[in-house]
Amino acid sequence: MTSDFHARIPDLMMASGPCSAYPRVLSAMGRQMMHHRTEDFVELMLSVDADLSRLFRTRNRVLPVEGESILGLEMAAYNLVEPGDVCINLASGYYGAGYARVLRGYGGEVVDVSVPYDTSVSIDQVRGALDRHPEAKVLAFVHSETPSASENPMGDICRECRDRGVLTIVDSVSGVGGSDVRFDDWGVDVCVTGTQKCLGSTPGMSLVALSDRAWERTRAVAVDAGRYERSYLSFLPWRRWVDEDYVPYTPPISSIYGLKAALDIIMDEGGVDASIARHEAAAKATRAGIRAMGLELWVDEDAHMANSVTAVTVPDGIDDRRLRGIMDDEYGLHISGGLGDEAGRLIRIGHMGYTASRQKVVTALGVLASALAELGRPVDVAAGLEAAAGA
Amino acid sequence: MTSDFHARIPDLMMASGPCSAYPRVLSAMGRQMMHHRTEDFVELMLSVDADLSRLFRTRNRVLPVEGESILGLEMAAYNLVEPGDVCINLASGYYGAGYARVLRGYGGEVVDVSVPYDTSVSIDQVRGALDRHPEAKVLAFVHSETPSASENPMGDICRECRDRGVLTIVDSVSGVGGSDVRFDDWGVDVCVTGTQKCLGSTPGMSLVALSDRAWERTRAVAVDAGRYERSYLSFLPWRRWVDEDYVPYTPPISSIYGLKAALDIIMDEGGVDASIARHEAAAKATRAGIRAMGLELWVDEDAHMANSVTAVTVPDGIDDRRLRGIMDDEYGLHISGGLGDEAGRLIRIGHMGYTASRQKVVTALGVLASALAELGRPVDVAAGLEAAAGA
Amino acid sequence: MTSDFHARIPDLMMASGPCSAYPRVLSAMGRQMMHHRTEDFVELMLSVDADLSRLFRTRNRVLPVEGESILGLEMAAYNLVEPGDVCINLASGYYGAGYARVLRGYGGEVVDVSVPYDTSVSIDQVRGALDRHPEAKVLAFVHSETPSASENPMGDICRECRDRGVLTIVDSVSGVGGSDVRFDDWGVDVCVTGTQKCLGSTPGMSLVALSDRAWERTRAVAVDAGRYERSYLSFLPWRRWVDEDYVPYTPPISSIYGLKAALDIIMDEGGVDASIARHEAAAKATRAGIRAMGLELWVDEDAHMANSVTAVTVPDGIDDRRLRGIMDDEYGLHISGGLGDEAGRLIRIGHMGYTASRQKVVTALGVLASALAELGRPVDVAAGLEAAAGA
Amino acid sequence: MTSDFHARIPDLMMASGPCSAYPRVLSAMGRQMMHHRTEDFVELMLSVDADLSRLFRTRNRVLPVEGESILGLEMAAYNLVEPGDVCINLASGYYGAGYARVLRGYGGEVVDVSVPYDTSVSIDQVRGALDRHPEAKVLAFVHSETPSASENPMGDICRECRDRGVLTIVDSVSGVGGSDVRFDDWGVDVCVTGTQKCLGSTPGMSLVALSDRAWERTRAVAVDAGRYERSYLSFLPWRRWVDEDYVPYTPPISSIYGLKAALDIIMDEGGVDASIARHEAAAKATRAGIRAMGLELWVDEDAHMANSVTAVTVPDGIDDRRLRGIMDDEYGLHISGGLGDEAGRLIRIGHMGYTASRQKVVTALGVLASALAELGRPVDVAAGLEAAAGA
Repeated sequence: MTSDFHARIPDLMMASGPCSAYPRVLSAMGRQMMHHRTEDFVELMLSVDADLSRLFRTRNRVLPVEGESILGLEMAAYNLVEPGDVCINLASGYYGAGYARVLRGYGGEVVDVSVPYDTSVSIDQVRGALDRHPEAKVLAFVHSETPSASENPMGDICRECRDRGVLTIVDSVSGVGGSDVRFDDWGVDVCVTGTQKCLGSTPGMSLVALSDRAWERTRAVAVDAGRYERSYLSFLPWRRWVDEDYVPYTPPISSIYGLKAALDIIMDEGGVDASIARHEAAAKATRAGIRAMGLELWVDEDAHMANSVTAVTVPDGIDDRRLRGIMDDEYGLHISGGLGDEAGRLIRIGHMGYTASRQKVVTALGVLASALAELGRPVDVAAGLEAAAGA
Repeated sequence: MTSDFHARIPDLMMASGPCSAYPRVLSAMGRQMMHHRTEDFVELMLSVDADLSRLFRTRNRVLPVEGESILGLEMAAYNLVEPGDVCINLASGYYGAGYARVLRGYGGEVVDVSVPYDTSVSIDQVRGALDRHPEAKVLAFVHSETPSASENPMGDICRECRDRGVLTIVDSVSGVGGSDVRFDDWGVDVCVTGTQKCLGSTPGMSLVALSDRAWERTRAVAVDAGRYERSYLSFLPWRRWVDEDYVPYTPPISSIYGLKAALDIIMDEGGVDASIARHEAAAKATRAGIRAMGLELWVDEDAHMANSVTAVTVPDGIDDRRLRGIMDDEYGLHISGGLGDEAGRLIRIGHMGYTASRQKVVTALGVLASALAELGRPVDVAAGLEAAAGA
Repeated sequence: MTSDFHARIPDLMMASGPCSAYPRVLSAMGRQMMHHRTEDFVELMLSVDADLSRLFRTRNRVLPVEGESILGLEMAAYNLVEPGDVCINLASGYYGAGYARVLRGYGGEVVDVSVPYDTSVSIDQVRGALDRHPEAKVLAFVHSETPSASENPMGDICRECRDRGVLTIVDSVSGVGGSDVRFDDWGVDVCVTGTQKCLGSTPGMSLVALSDRAWERTRAVAVDAGRYERSYLSFLPWRRWVDEDYVPYTPPISSIYGLKAALDIIMDEGGVDASIARHEAAAKATRAGIRAMGLELWVDEDAHMANSVTAVTVPDGIDDRRLRGIMDDEYGLHISGGLGDEAGRLIRIGHMGYTASRQKVVTALGVLASALAELGRPVDVAAGLEAAAGA
Repeated sequence: MTSDFHARIPDLMMASGPCSAYPRVLSAMGRQMMHHRTEDFVELMLSVDADLSRLFRTRNRVLPVEGESILGLEMAAYNLVEPGDVCINLASGYYGAGYARVLRGYGGEVVDVSVPYDTSVSIDQVRGALDRHPEAKVLAFVHSETPSASENPMGDICRECRDRGVLTIVDSVSGVGGSDVRFDDWGVDVCVTGTQKCLGSTPGMSLVALSDRAWERTRAVAVDAGRYERSYLSFLPWRRWVDEDYVPYTPPISSIYGLKAALDIIMDEGGVDASIARHEAAAKATRAGIRAMGLELWVDEDAHMANSVTAVTVPDGIDDRRLRGIMDDEYGLHISGGLGDEAGRLIRIGHMGYTASRQKVVTALGVLASALAELGRPVDVAAGLEAAAGA
């Protein structure tokens, strides 16, 4: 296999993430190297930081960590959780449920608040858990659960925790840029997003916003729990970035180029509000289209559905692998199936970043309908497209 | 205006040509320069030539001329037509009709054979004209008329002319690679195609196949009509390419890179037969979809329709500019309107090169349906997609 | 041979043109297609035009013709010369000498003014010729003769011709952007440049500036000589661009992207004066370096040397092919040899566009010295680099 | 600041890493996304793995970890070191010295073996330390110390440790691909390299080879020291890659594309031996050139010098920032200064990956000489280039 494998790259990828990236991002990824210890590069990093602060709506710096989002999420536990800390973990999907292991990995006493994966956690459930566990130090949850395409009410939960002095760790990997996130106003403590979801760049970075409380807690935990302060997992080396504009590692230069291009796209379209509105519109159109086509959405109600991905129940009698195989092989469109128990029961259509557009929604609905028809299960795509257009 | 105008580039272009190019072609266009007077570059050119010969199905070299296709077509007249030559010119569309001026420009006595622009010329009409004008030296026609999306029966016409000793000049700018062309078998004399149509590369080159008879005629006309033999319009400087592997000009290096990538794509998918089959399938799917949606195709019957573009009659009461405006602005899909008398009466959807795919056809049908619905003219897109899938 | 032939692309090309292009240009070449019949594209073309007017220092439009520079030069003769016109042709090199054939091709009665190819034409020689041929209609010459790396005094010649009412046709293919060109002030009539020389883009276009007199003459010649007005060679179709902002052909979209990036580079570095100063500095540094290394420049004196390329006499006993072979194979640096009678007697180092930089001059001198040393002919590269730095 | 900042990218970067990347790598970085959970992507990963195994000369899988090399190095301590383990740490430079903190961070009892930073550790010193500390579990060292451009005798050290049952952790971030590494033959246990050094790709990944012993030790330490087995720092999640071809994280897709292109370049040039030979030649040429120019190499003797970077003592009276400033601003060549105590005393020239070529060495020597001359400190560049060519 040589590196000229263009034929293997799908023409369009509307998966649960990554999706096809913006052409402008890809063009930026191909730029030659600058050196990271130059004024020009620091200026670029500061410009990225200014845009990221707008994106998270925070006055604080957002750490541009090199490594997959799961790294940023583990960093949150490494720095905020010490043995014996009671941590409320909201589980409304696989990623949320899995985070309990991370919290336990750092000594957290985890209180699980679980709901079925086709719905989201209510603020009342959160209040109940906080009432029952006034000793809780940390509450963690996933904002946008891509495995089930659901979304938790981030603002309500974080404000409640802030008012009670409980630190919040929010996995908004597929949320930031596509759903509303108001880091400072809502008093969020740690919020992690990725570059490859609603930003439309490529995978490879964790973007981590930290409140002042989170920084304080980081220092305390480092001492109390004896956390190695120079670890790649520690936030502390990043103080040099916050305080001295000195990036503590060799940054992933190409990924920074791509990220800057992605942020430029958002700023050019009118800023983060415009980006969120576009994602919301794509989500509503997709849902309306799916329903009008006579298919079922997996998540129980609209208020619980994510802006970046839509989960569709696989109709009875349809093999989801054959369905996705037709979409892939005959139509060059790659979407995702379900994870875990949902394998075979769900298909998931990503509309995030570059693919959060009316055109891509039409393509996805049209191809899905065509593939279903090929499998002997025609749907009313006319109603679907009409509903999508009017959503 | 700076050079970073990505936002102005349409997400998808299915116009009458150029259409969006293959990503692999665009990647090749960005390569650094080689020098054209090196063995490596000549090897590249020979490799392009070998692929082009497969594409036109000829044993002769196909001239890779730098300049728009109209240049290659003018070269045909410059080299083959001398004052007083009777030239039968088949006009089944704007391009065909316009070629009469070129023939006259070089002294040709043009006999026009015109048909309405929503049909194509029949072989009987050709025979009739040839019967009436046994003195004819040249017969010229457009294989695939993109302005009206029609196609003339190239094989029949060329074989008839060959049998009668009449030279043929064929504008197959949007035909080669998408419709069957058998240069040697059919005895074609000059056939011109472009890089930006069914090859899916970018505009900038004319690819010109010449028969041995055409080369002979070129030499004779140069002498008889005193044509300047070193002109950019003359085929004669290209003898150095044919005879000595020496390209007579500085070739457009980036365009050669792009063309080679486009040819690689065709060879990788199985060769020219596979490419034609793909274009034919896209055309059939588009037509079936348009009809099933209750819209009218402009061209009178399927046998007369082009493989690379489909013309749809604008429904009564619809302003085609508003329709295309919605497709552009809201859906990021750029298609073409009609030319000349057909302005406002036609829309044209290109399915050529990169866009000759099932996915792109679904996108085009879906977006067209959505835009029509927005204008209060809903169509049965379900039937359309079903018909497209089954075509 | 597949399209993945990166290994065959020289690491650095400092030939007589094309040279290695700017990375920013190559990045622009890889952009997806826009449609040329859109407002956005016309805006791009107008922006290119505004920059080109700055480059040529003219208020008139500069025609962005698709095809190698030789096409633009032939257009000049096609449109300005009619049978019987006396044309003074200055021949100070192969390109200049060759243009006599073009002028004759269109009926010109050519008066040749020749000088040895290692010098340039003096203004006195021009005056003498004009005195001897007061009937001359046209005077043609090459501004920068890349085959011998010499330069003619364009301003003096054109002003003299303007004052005498003689039309000038100037081949400044490797001049514009690297040497001073003042189209309007000097009263030039036709000036042609290429995209692949001092602009640092890729080959494929002819950029043609026309005076009002040239436009008038074009109209007259079209009538008098019966030139086909719709020919690809005619300037007349371009009136639609000049008068209506309508590009008369499908433009080479990628090449326009690349050209715009090249023009942006010039405007970003401070405009055409800065670009010329950089080329002049690179030329002076190269000459100083070559001389200090004990080698001989081919052209007789500095005032006659080109800014875009330097010709060096091959030292006795050195086989230029072996020399260039070592530079190519061992050092990844491609330069040019001599043409015609100069084959084997010259090597030519291009310093134009991207390669007109102090770094590239150091690289060229250093590699040349190393290759000569390998052939047993050491030179004083220390003196060479010192002289280059101080030039 | 927009994303179009090409002007800020240095024309050539020969720093201590990253250096300018291969154009072929940059082209690959700009490819569109594939999904990582597809057969095609797994095939790509397996192909990368096969090449990496050739590169490290091991039968084991080399983990393609997402994150800077420092992450891979910390992983080694996380997985192999438990509290109380005696770890011999060889410090022949800043990176080596700094690793003691990492070992201590995971409870290691560190025995430092230090040598001045302008030399390397001898095998006798290693034997002595091993003799004095027969209880040692681990020995760690840096193969190629980029801060001082020195190299430790990796083969000797690792074989000695293997024979004594001491695990080795080798930082070969700037070694692998440029210097000989025989992972299996020498019995290395953990060896980490980066993508942005001798491979000539971009920064962003850690490539980690593990012996069977290292895997065993990882399992034991996880249990004994209670290391969190699902941590991003743990090797254990990577068992799914080793055992099941399942990448445990979302891989950095663009970086994988770039890495594959870099590996293709190595395989195309003849494999890892050819790559090492090229780096060795570049290093020898640079050293010979520097010495012949009358400058001093920082490292005490050739056998201790690195193949990927050369440290030059800043001559008396020269301000290294002014020197590098001239190289940057006037010649577009970016090199590195010294770190820590060596700031102002050293300049470092990287010749790794794309810049490990004869042309780039000539450029670096020539530009350095020119900049020194500008500062009033001329050097004998003629002797330098001659020596470089003959090295």
